[in-house]
Amino acid sequence: MTDLSRESVEKAASRIRSHIHRTPVFTCQALNDIVGSELFFKCENFQKVGAFKARGALNAVLSMSDGISEVVTHSSGNHGAALAWAAGLRGMNCHVVVPKDASKFKRAAMVRYGANLVDCGSDLASRETKLAEFLERSHARFIPPYDDPYIIAGQGTATLELMEKVSDLDQIWVPVGGGGLASGAILASDGRVEIVGAEPELADDAYQSMKTGKRESPRDPITIADGLRSSLGDQTFEILHRACTTIALVAEAEIVGAMRMVWEHMKIVIEPSSAVTLAAILRYPDLVKKKVGIVLSGGNVSYASAN
Amino acid sequence: MTDLSRESVEKAASRIRSHIHRTPVFTCQALNDIVGSELFFKCENFQKVGAFKARGALNAVLSMSDGISEVVTHSSGNHGAALAWAAGLRGMNCHVVVPKDASKFKRAAMVRYGANLVDCGSDLASRETKLAEFLERSHARFIPPYDDPYIIAGQGTATLELMEKVSDLDQIWVPVGGGGLASGAILASDGRVEIVGAEPELADDAYQSMKTGKRESPRDPITIADGLRSSLGDQTFEILHRACTTIALVAEAEIVGAMRMVWEHMKIVIEPSSAVTLAAILRYPDLVKKKVGIVLSGGNVSYASAN
Repeated sequence: MTDLSRESVEKAASRIRSHIHRTPVFTCQALNDIVGSELFFKCENFQKVGAFKARGALNAVLSMSDGISEVVTHSSGNHGAALAWAAGLRGMNCHVVVPKDASKFKRAAMVRYGANLVDCGSDLASRETKLAEFLERSHARFIPPYDDPYIIAGQGTATLELMEKVSDLDQIWVPVGGGGLASGAILASDGRVEIVGAEPELADDAYQSMKTGKRESPRDPITIADGLRSSLGDQTFEILHRACTTIALVAEAEIVGAMRMVWEHMKIVIEPSSAVTLAAILRYPDLVKKKVGIVLSGGNVSYASAN
Repeated sequence: MTDLSRESVEKAASRIRSHIHRTPVFTCQALNDIVGSELFFKCENFQKVGAFKARGALNAVLSMSDGISEVVTHSSGNHGAALAWAAGLRGMNCHVVVPKDASKFKRAAMVRYGANLVDCGSDLASRETKLAEFLERSHARFIPPYDDPYIIAGQGTATLELMEKVSDLDQIWVPVGGGGLASGAILASDGRVEIVGAEPELADDAYQSMKTGKRESPRDPITIADGLRSSLGDQTFEILHRACTTIALVAEAEIVGAMRMVWEHMKIVIEPSSAVTLAAILRYPDLVKKKVGIVLSGGNVSYASAN
């Protein structure tokens, strides 16, 4: 049972404030007209390392006691880059266990931020085995990608900032992969704003878990939204389940369509994982209230391959 | 001989202020590191209609006397959309003579803003003939795309805002097509900041004109930078020539590479015409000073086709 609260998010916010960007909140009349609501986009694609993951990783790294010189994690991209960046700020080494089929663009980014990459297979079991092997032969501290109180609190700061900027939102939509961003949003909101999750149909473990009331294993997730292939952890499941979080599912073509709408109307680059929220808003108009926040989670996509 | 001055730009700025966006100025550490200078990007891709052209078109429309109910222009895209948008604000009809090979994406945008499209061939002569025919049988007022004092003064307001936001720039780089943006920049700068133009090799009439000292006819311009296929007009040539403007030429592959760098590092969508400046900065490091403004002219490119 986690004892995380809004206060944990506020503490994370003061801890990381001087190193991260307070990203802008964009609006777009054309999208408002299409949806029929007022939309407020929190642009974490402009965040350090191009994704909200910088927040949680930095909060975790800055919360560690002195004397640790190495960290390790597993990641298909953004969390790995974020941890390498955050570790660099404290002069630590960072290792990342990376699935072989991770986006080349994201692999290159992790290396650019100083990560040492350790290859593994594409399924979760392979990730976990490789990580366990690595931890056995090193002194590195494991920083999980989402199922960790410091990570969750850190990710919550994106929602906290959005609520500070637009005070009277009816709801906030966030993408759900491992559930770190969504859990952080629920803590930050503390019941003041409804938090709605969106998830690809092809990686629907959070949807299934909310339905059955227990943590469901994922199918082999092959969605284009590569940041959302993870499944909920114990802590993120608990937070989402306790809040009775609605999860809206979207198809792959809807994700691509929504991504394209954001690129073309808002002139900003978002990655597929960021587009699931708008895709869900377009698919389920009955779920959508009048004044709606949307966390655009990241912008790390190659112009050449859209992956 | 034009009697335009910085004051004309300031007047335009007050005339259009309440209808246009004061677009943000972005910076990007990764691009600063690559170039070795401090870069300040004026994001006109976020402007109304997705391009700086909204400024000039609106200044022209708001400067017209009452009693005119129709305007007409020729355009491959952004000026047409801008004029349709501006005309709509005064309840006027807008007709646009459009080359058959104009970007479908931009044609659709013009229609969305209310323009009536009149097709013509892809060369300049065909545009002019079709426009002359149209003017003969209508009462519409012709609003030229760049060679017009109100258009030039309006476009200058982008540079004026950039100089207000970053007061000690060493130079400002702008793309050169018909020369409206560059001429406006020269007026706004009034000698305080060096204005440098960038142009595709495949549409190098401004470069040639500066070299010979007279207005050179363009070759048949087939550059991917579809906003820069126009050639200088009498007035824009005069302003650029009087200011001894340096024009830097770039190859097509350099334009695509620079556009990709902006998308990937800055997470914003710019169209090829906007990328010629960064392409030129990368190609001619000796021309580049320490604190550099760059006007990103527009973001109207389809995600699907990059055109």
